[in-house]
Amino acid sequence: MNDAADPLVPVLAVVGTGLIGGSFAAALRRVGQVGRVLGVGRNPASLRRAQALGLIDEAVDLPQAAARADLIFLATPISAMAPALRALAPVLRPDTLLTDAGSTKSDVARLAQEALGERYLQFIPGHPIAGSEMTGPEAADPLLYHGRKVVLTPFDDTPGLAQHRLIRVWEACGARVQLMRPDAHDRALGCVSHLPHFLAAAYMAQVVRAEDADTRLGLAGTGFRDFTRIAAGSPEVWRDIFFSNRAAVLGELADFERVLGRWRAALEDDSHPETLEAMLEQAALARRFWGGRNQMS
Amino acid sequence: MNDAADPLVPVLAVVGTGLIGGSFAAALRRVGQVGRVLGVGRNPASLRRAQALGLIDEAVDLPQAAARADLIFLATPISAMAPALRALAPVLRPDTLLTDAGSTKSDVARLAQEALGERYLQFIPGHPIAGSEMTGPEAADPLLYHGRKVVLTPFDDTPGLAQHRLIRVWEACGARVQLMRPDAHDRALGCVSHLPHFLAAAYMAQVVRAEDADTRLGLAGTGFRDFTRIAAGSPEVWRDIFFSNRAAVLGELADFERVLGRWRAALEDDSHPETLEAMLEQAALARRFWGGRNQMS
Repeated sequence: MNDAADPLVPVLAVVGTGLIGGSFAAALRRVGQVGRVLGVGRNPASLRRAQALGLIDEAVDLPQAAARADLIFLATPISAMAPALRALAPVLRPDTLLTDAGSTKSDVARLAQEALGERYLQFIPGHPIAGSEMTGPEAADPLLYHGRKVVLTPFDDTPGLAQHRLIRVWEACGARVQLMRPDAHDRALGCVSHLPHFLAAAYMAQVVRAEDADTRLGLAGTGFRDFTRIAAGSPEVWRDIFFSNRAAVLGELADFERVLGRWRAALEDDSHPETLEAMLEQAALARRFWGGRNQMS
Repeated sequence: MNDAADPLVPVLAVVGTGLIGGSFAAALRRVGQVGRVLGVGRNPASLRRAQALGLIDEAVDLPQAAARADLIFLATPISAMAPALRALAPVLRPDTLLTDAGSTKSDVARLAQEALGERYLQFIPGHPIAGSEMTGPEAADPLLYHGRKVVLTPFDDTPGLAQHRLIRVWEACGARVQLMRPDAHDRALGCVSHLPHFLAAAYMAQVVRAEDADTRLGLAGTGFRDFTRIAAGSPEVWRDIFFSNRAAVLGELADFERVLGRWRAALEDDSHPETLEAMLEQAALARRFWGGRNQMS
């Protein structure tokens, strides 16, 4: 589809030039697969920093992005996507491809259909499984997506050519693409991403409410550090994720509360410590197996 | 108390020569503050590896350790401490100091009093706030305690000289010593260490029980990795910690279940997303503040 002189994405527009959008632009630049990068954002200071860092070539508004870009990458909180898509729709070129990096997919697919009307097939919902609790253009990293999975949830009638183009772009960033149904994605991510964030944040809120919170926090070590790291993430982004995937998260949470009740009962019964030990063993083996398989300790 | 030729600990006995005990010996060796290191353990293969790694000079039994050591460091699961102390008691020299690295302190203090009888003042309960989900002598690290806190919970009538000796030893390992009451220690650690482990392990058990566990785990990223890391810890060690600090952990767990109920209610009410956002904001600020103060992101 292209030769060396002809990048995969002649003109890229990134809506939201922070960690996710900035890293996408930087990744494509690193491998010479993008021509010009347009940046769109709510925050002029952030856009200026993105430009100073070389992540974007110029700041534009949404209609300009729609008129000029070959690929538009939406890297905003989910609640900002519908207004952005509505602003893009009237001036969108028919050959422009749109995708996003939102952490939920059913909701994003639905709002893309509503906002883009008959042009919804130009939009392929996506979710790179990569991130950090850091935010802003300074956190952008050309290798953020390297070796990571990216889930795409195309519509049933998404043209194969468009899908193929987007897969090649993500592979150029070093990512591995996995195609899924949006509801399957949302259930899986509700379990392995959204519920842990919910629990870590609720736990953190509990710790700081204690009367002797300072003493407690002063004794917190590396286990605490890692368990709570995700709780530092953007409240706005995570509010959107939770409400966008509310049913799945509430379902996982109800399951967790039931499981936790069984674990509590095992701890309450001090005549049978082997019950809790067997449960801890199962959890430890599962975690070690996952860590080994994913080369992540 | 000593000069350059005269190490703080002429003869050290380490009971349990894995991560915690091995790192203690290695830390003192690194700064030249230990003469000879005796290793005691249940597992002959582990003792041989500890000796091959240079962590211990020779493997001995508990009576030999009691007869020869100036300092005995108990680095075993808590349930192994009472039998070890009972074996040490009859042959213990009156000038030998004992301490431990157990994660709970009220229970350890009580069992030391029971096992050592009138010699209990030779024992100063301790807890280095450092660790790893790795185990065994291979995981030993001379810098494990560097910059970490060590809590000591002396008895009301612990001699000041003994306490001072132990503080100097820990400071030689690079640790900062904090004196606390055992019950205050156990409440604080129940909150910042034991409850997170309990939640991470229960969560991990939930994930692997799902029908599509493989799909889910295949989409798990760095947030999942960090949130669940502690769940890989030793089931035996953690069984002991949970039952040893049962009342505090159950109290913290009950608090958490109440807090989680409030968070669930905030997510159920989709007409007021700002409520959950404010809760997420509080958690994020608390976590960022802690990370900044402790130079741990």
